[in-house]
Parts: sequence; C-alpha cells; structure tokens
Amino acid sequence: MKEYKIAVVGAMGAVGSEMLKTLAQRHFPASEVKALDIAANAGKKVPFGDGELTVRETKIEEFRGVNAALFAVGDAISKELAPQVAATGCVVIDNSAAWRMDPNVPLVVPECNPEDLRWHKGIIANPNCSTIIAMVPLKPLHDYAGLKRITAATYQAVSGAGILGLSELSNQTRDVLDGKPAQPKVFQHQIAFNLIPHIDYFEDNGYTHEEMKMFREGRKILGLPNLMVNCTCVRVPVFRSHSEAITIETERELTPEKARELLANAPGVKLFDDPSKNEYPMPVDTSNGDLVWVGRIRKDISAPNSLTFWCAGDQIRKGAALNAVQIAETMAKMDIL
Amino acid sequence: MKEYKIAVVGAMGAVGSEMLKTLAQRHFPASEVKALDIAANAGKKVPFGDGELTVRETKIEEFRGVNAALFAVGDAISKELAPQVAATGCVVIDNSAAWRMDPNVPLVVPECNPEDLRWHKGIIANPNCSTIIAMVPLKPLHDYAGLKRITAATYQAVSGAGILGLSELSNQTRDVLDGKPAQPKVFQHQIAFNLIPHIDYFEDNGYTHEEMKMFREGRKILGLPNLMVNCTCVRVPVFRSHSEAITIETERELTPEKARELLANAPGVKLFDDPSKNEYPMPVDTSNGDLVWVGRIRKDISAPNSLTFWCAGDQIRKGAALNAVQIAETMAKMDIL
Repeated sequence: MKEYKIAVVGAMGAVGSEMLKTLAQRHFPASEVKALDIAANAGKKVPFGDGELTVRETKIEEFRGVNAALFAVGDAISKELAPQVAATGCVVIDNSAAWRMDPNVPLVVPECNPEDLRWHKGIIANPNCSTIIAMVPLKPLHDYAGLKRITAATYQAVSGAGILGLSELSNQTRDVLDGKPAQPKVFQHQIAFNLIPHIDYFEDNGYTHEEMKMFREGRKILGLPNLMVNCTCVRVPVFRSHSEAITIETERELTPEKARELLANAPGVKLFDDPSKNEYPMPVDTSNGDLVWVGRIRKDISAPNSLTFWCAGDQIRKGAALNAVQIAETMAKMDIL
Repeated sequence: MKEYKIAVVGAMGAVGSEMLKTLAQRHFPASEVKALDIAANAGKKVPFGDGELTVRETKIEEFRGVNAALFAVGDAISKELAPQVAATGCVVIDNSAAWRMDPNVPLVVPECNPEDLRWHKGIIANPNCSTIIAMVPLKPLHDYAGLKRITAATYQAVSGAGILGLSELSNQTRDVLDGKPAQPKVFQHQIAFNLIPHIDYFEDNGYTHEEMKMFREGRKILGLPNLMVNCTCVRVPVFRSHSEAITIETERELTPEKARELLANAPGVKLFDDPSKNEYPMPVDTSNGDLVWVGRIRKDISAPNSLTFWCAGDQIRKGAALNAVQIAETMAKMDIL
C-alpha cells in the first residue's frame, strides 16, 4: 500500500492536535507525520497515537517531499503560507476561511462532493464547521427530493473558538457558580449560562459572516447556485458539539419515513430518532465521535414539501479535523494524493 | 382608587413566589394578598415587598370575597380547583396548560389581545412561556404586515421546570466540572453543558406538545385560525430567560427598518438591535426584567416577504408570573375585576 508524508500545521491548537489524533486513530497510511507550529512551540511534544511527536517550527523547507499538509491556522497565515506550500508540490488541506470561496479551490465534505477533489490546484478548503454538520445529512435528502431552501438555527459549541474558548467556558462557569463576575475574553459577552447570537463579524445585510457561510459554502458544496439559505448562528454554553434545528423545502415530496430511510443509509450519518425512547441527538452523546447524528425528523406542518429535523456533531472532529483527514483519505483512495 | 383582594395559589413555587414579588413591585392596588399553597407549606413565610406573608393551606373558603386568584399550580390541580374557585365569584388567572385551549376560556397576552378578557366566564388562561415571549413582538408586526407563517427555534431556560430545574442546572454543572457523573432527575438527560430537544411529551405528528403550543396558542392569541407555525423547542443550560430565533412570512412587505420602528413603539418590547455595538438580546441581560428584548432583525434573504429576528425574555416573569399579574392589572383598568 502506498504511504504518504503528512504535515499538520498548527499542531498545538484544538483542531491541529485533533488532526494528529484522528490520523493515528484512523490508521492513515503515513510513512511520516510532521507536527508543525509557531517557533515558540518548537521542541514541545504532542501526542500521536501511543507515542508523541516533537513539534518543529513551520518553515517552507519542512514541506519538501510532503504529500499533504493539513492546515489548522488562522485566515491570515493561511493566505500567505498556503500558496507557498502548494508551490512545493505539497497539497494543502486548509481549515481556515481564507480559500473556501476561491473559485480555484474545491470546498469539500467527502460525503457530499468528493469528485471536486479532482480539480484542485494545490489547495483544498475544509468548510466551516456548522456548514459541514448541516451538509452531511442534507446531501442525501437533496439527492432524493431537490433542495430549494434551508432555514437553520444553530446551537454552536465554544470549541469553535479553539482551546481558549473551551477554557473560558469552564473557568467562567465556575466563577459564576461561585458568585464572581464573568470576565469575557474570548467571546464578546459572558458565555456561562448565556447565549450569544453573534459568531464572526456582522455583514451589511444584518447576517453574521458565520450565517452567510452556510449560505455561500452550502451552495458551493452542493453545487446549487440558487439554493436559498436563512441561518441564525448562536453560541451556546456547550463544549464541543454543534447542534442545528433545520427546516428544508424541497422540489419534490419527502416524507419523514423516506428521510429516515435515506439517512439510515447515508455515509457519515447516525440516525437517532426514537422519541418513544427519548432518543434524539444531543451534544453529550455526539462529542468525541465522528458521525453527525440526526433525529426529531418530522413533516413541517406549516408548509407543503417541507421537512424539519435536528442534528448534532462534534465541532472539532467532523466540523474540522476529521473532515480534513477524510479529504486526505479520499484523495489517497482516488490515487490523486 | 378601587382595591382588590388577591390570592396566589402555589405561592412557594418558582412562578408563585415571582407572582407575589411582581404584585408588590408593581404596586398592584391590593387591599389584601393571600399566599396559598399545599398543607405541608402552611405556616411558612414568603417574601412580599419589604415584608412577608404567612402561607395558608389552599382551601375553597379562602377564596370567598377574593377578586382574583393567580394560579401557579400543575394542570391536574388546576383542572379540579379552578372551576370551584370560579364558582365562588373569584376570577381565576391560571398559569397551567389545563384551560388554554378551552373555547370558553380567554388566552391572553395583555399586549396582544386584552379585549378577550371581556368574555371570560370565571377562568382566564396564561399562555405557555415560550409562546408569550414570541407573541409580544409578533403582534405589532402582524398588525402591520399580516402574519402567515412562523418558523421558530427556541433556546429555553431550565426555570421552565420550576425551582427543581434551576437547582438541577447549578448542582449538575458543578458536578460535571468536578468530573462527577451527571445525575438527571428533573430533565430527561444531562442539561449541564448539553442541549435537550425535548420539552413536554411527544405528539403523534413528531412535534412535542411544547412545540404545538406555539402553533395552537399562537393562533388563539392572535385570532388567526389559519396561522402556520413550525417550531423546534430545545432546553438549554441557561437559568431563567428563554430565547428564540424566529422567521416570519407576511402577507405584505415588512422591511427591517419598518419592523424596528414598530417594535421601538410596541408595548412590552425593548428594541435592542445594534450589531455595531455588539448589542442584541441575551439571557443574562433579560433575566429578572419585564420586557421581551428584540434584535438581530434582518430581511430573510431566502424568501420574499420574510423577516428574521432574535428575541429573549425572562421565563418566570413575562413567560409566567408577570403576564398573570398584567392580566389582573388590565382587568382592573377595564373595571371588569
């Protein structure tokens, strides 16, 4: 079997360390895995499988002979570094928002549009986390019934803001329980026992950039330039799984029974939909797992050809690290890595 | 000024004690306020204004000469007791779900349908909490543009389950932070750092009863027998304010600017909608307050004549106790109490 040299850039972050964990757990066929990060972290150790890797500084010469680099860095660094790395012949699989809407860059959820990987020009973009988690169940429903419109309200975990987001929730929650004032640093406001309907910056149309990602990235991933999307994104005091209340309008009728049948057989989905047993997706159950759980499937009683459901998936894994690793796996299977 | 004798039934509960607090805070013109509860609580003291009241056992003779009884009890008790109390000539303002859909019982949000108070036959129903909080901003928008369809996703506080819900969230959160297992008693599952898309029982159509309350009670409050409502109700780890992501389709065009103008002048509403200052409604700000805060108002880019917004309001106050007190106040003003 062919083996690959892989680099993870931003290996000390929430997503980067999860990429390393995921590569090891899924036995990615790697002859070498490099953990790269900023100079200040060089020499530190990060876990990898049963062992550990020594972090090295991210320098362009590190990418020579590397087949794929999984980027878990901010937009600005990616914007500068990704083209340089791609120019060395190393494919960049980038988790930032820097390249997602670039027409020369495929934006891929492997369960939805793996064929788009074939036309990459050196950079492949990993979609936004809440978008990925919606797309996994939406794709099989679209293939059957034709997706026209999505109305979504998200319940997004603090892990979307990285390791500092996770510690802010736990520390601040303890403070609030102890009667101390909340001191927001990572988030705009208190997140402990609160909700913040504001993720990423506000655009001119009143939507946040996060909300417009579902609109723009959803169209690109599903290949539907006219898809209508109305999204409200809300940060909730949950650690690492995003949940979403989704209503879809379809071209053709889609009964709840048919939707369940489609989702029971869909890749990346766990159908978990038995109200009689109090079974529906919840963050505590989906965290640290690979699948997007779907439940609460019902006919939308307010409109024809409309279906409503609830889904949840781990933000760090399927929303970021796992999806990037799956892109590399899919390219390996296609023999284009 | 005319003064009234008032009784609060269930005075030791989360809603009942808030009713007493609200009556005192708002200087309800009462010549006497009785705090009634189960026999086991008789003789206990409950705060009322700067002083306190001695709780008495709920017995039918307590209601003689009382003008209005605010009921904060369960459906079964209300079903039995309310007709007996109404028969004494005391108006029952009932917070349970027992009477809401009874065609002989007005279901009233004073900002929306105060005139319905005129046709009561002894019992008046207080609507469901998440329904009230949606109706307050929806009424002025409906009056202007004609409401056709509501799509809502709720983010509901634990106070909806009473005092035990509040203590379960704080105790369980501490346990989880300390690495101890969560032990759900009040809620179906862990609520600390989790979301539960399940409030009240499941109906045959796959919606929960809570979700169908928005459908059924919304139609009755707004007097719109054909209003279409699709709701997803979710319990979130927040103490006492419900929040809601709402999208409406209207008969006529309703711009965000017009909606803001209408809501700035609407009773019971605080317009709080300035993204440039990170201003939008949040549970930490609306808790212990009387108003429903509305923000994130924007044109729904996915459909014509469609508007999206976010609102939040205190579940115990406007969602229950305050609305009941406002009903009594409104009846006093109308001179029908």
